[in-house]
Amino acid sequence: MAGYVSEAVIKRLPSYYRHLKELEREGVNQISSQDLGERMRLTASQIRQDINCFGGFGRQGYGYSVEGLREHIGHILGVDHLHKMIILGGGNIGRAIASSNSFPNNGFETVAIFDNDPKKIGTDVEGIIVQDICNLERFVHEHTVDIALLAVPAMRAQSLAEELYGYGVRGFWNFAPLDLKLPEDVSVENVHLDESLEVLSFRMMQQLCSPML
Amino acid sequence: MAGYVSEAVIKRLPSYYRHLKELEREGVNQISSQDLGERMRLTASQIRQDINCFGGFGRQGYGYSVEGLREHIGHILGVDHLHKMIILGGGNIGRAIASSNSFPNNGFETVAIFDNDPKKIGTDVEGIIVQDICNLERFVHEHTVDIALLAVPAMRAQSLAEELYGYGVRGFWNFAPLDLKLPEDVSVENVHLDESLEVLSFRMMQQLCSPML
Repeated sequence: MAGYVSEAVIKRLPSYYRHLKELEREGVNQISSQDLGERMRLTASQIRQDINCFGGFGRQGYGYSVEGLREHIGHILGVDHLHKMIILGGGNIGRAIASSNSFPNNGFETVAIFDNDPKKIGTDVEGIIVQDICNLERFVHEHTVDIALLAVPAMRAQSLAEELYGYGVRGFWNFAPLDLKLPEDVSVENVHLDESLEVLSFRMMQQLCSPML
Repeated sequence: MAGYVSEAVIKRLPSYYRHLKELEREGVNQISSQDLGERMRLTASQIRQDINCFGGFGRQGYGYSVEGLREHIGHILGVDHLHKMIILGGGNIGRAIASSNSFPNNGFETVAIFDNDPKKIGTDVEGIIVQDICNLERFVHEHTVDIALLAVPAMRAQSLAEELYGYGVRGFWNFAPLDLKLPEDVSVENVHLDESLEVLSFRMMQQLCSPML
């Protein structure tokens, strides 16, 4: 994969990956940019442009190999090898993610959950025992940890992220409602649920204010 | 609020709202575009451009009234009045959202949870009893329902959304891993957790491949 990829294309990559997996399940071997575009509600030209952008693929008039393209995009996304994830915060979100059966199939494995609440420590989440946060440093030094999921209150998230950075963790999946300030060699992806709901509310307001189509 | 607002600005609105609430809590009354920009890691000129875009505010050289701007953006986002939400799917995600104490403070109230799993029906989630999905139609007809949160398997989500559309629901907060196909007068906001994790994985790959700064 060569060169700069725009933020918009990056955000579309997982959607390509999902649609290609669906096509594989449906037994489709080849797909044209036209058909893929209809499925993804993008234009054929947008599809060709995107796919060129992440390395070129397929031949004019022959369409794309579904399996080949899915593998290629999976490789770009880095989901063709396993990521070990720890969860900070054994509350509802942390437990929901740990209990989800979709992530292990996609190259992500939850290897530990930490909390500082005595009521949560020692409880079982799908076979993973919630550990005392005091064990965090030792655990990270003794195990491979690629990603830390932060599902802790906003006031705890920054200091915890810095601590984890100090232990060598470079990937953060942040559910806390704040923007983490971390060095440049860190990757952060935010899931701000409050903000998502506010954007939905905004779109609903726009619908109310705009004339019916 | 007049005219077209770009998707990028829409996505930044909740972040403005969050930072302004924080500033209010810190007792800050006025803020310059420079200072707000530093806080939000945007340029002062970007801040001014955004704020102009959603209606103009503040006077050159005086900065913005924190409370005034927060109220204005809250109004644009539609979070200054209460949204009634129902949750479809009493699994981990549905329960996590229903149990969250951050949404009620932000203008969103969970009024019911539905599931078709006899093991979940009748269980209590923070005072809300999970109802049989058979009651859905009656409930929506008898109560105001602004938003339906879809936390059901992908294969169920489309038909359920269509059913809810038929009952008059026009706002969908979709956690199921698919793109809903619904009429134009519907607002949909997706939370695709798998995709978020894949984007994180992609960013980590990029960090590995790019030379250290």
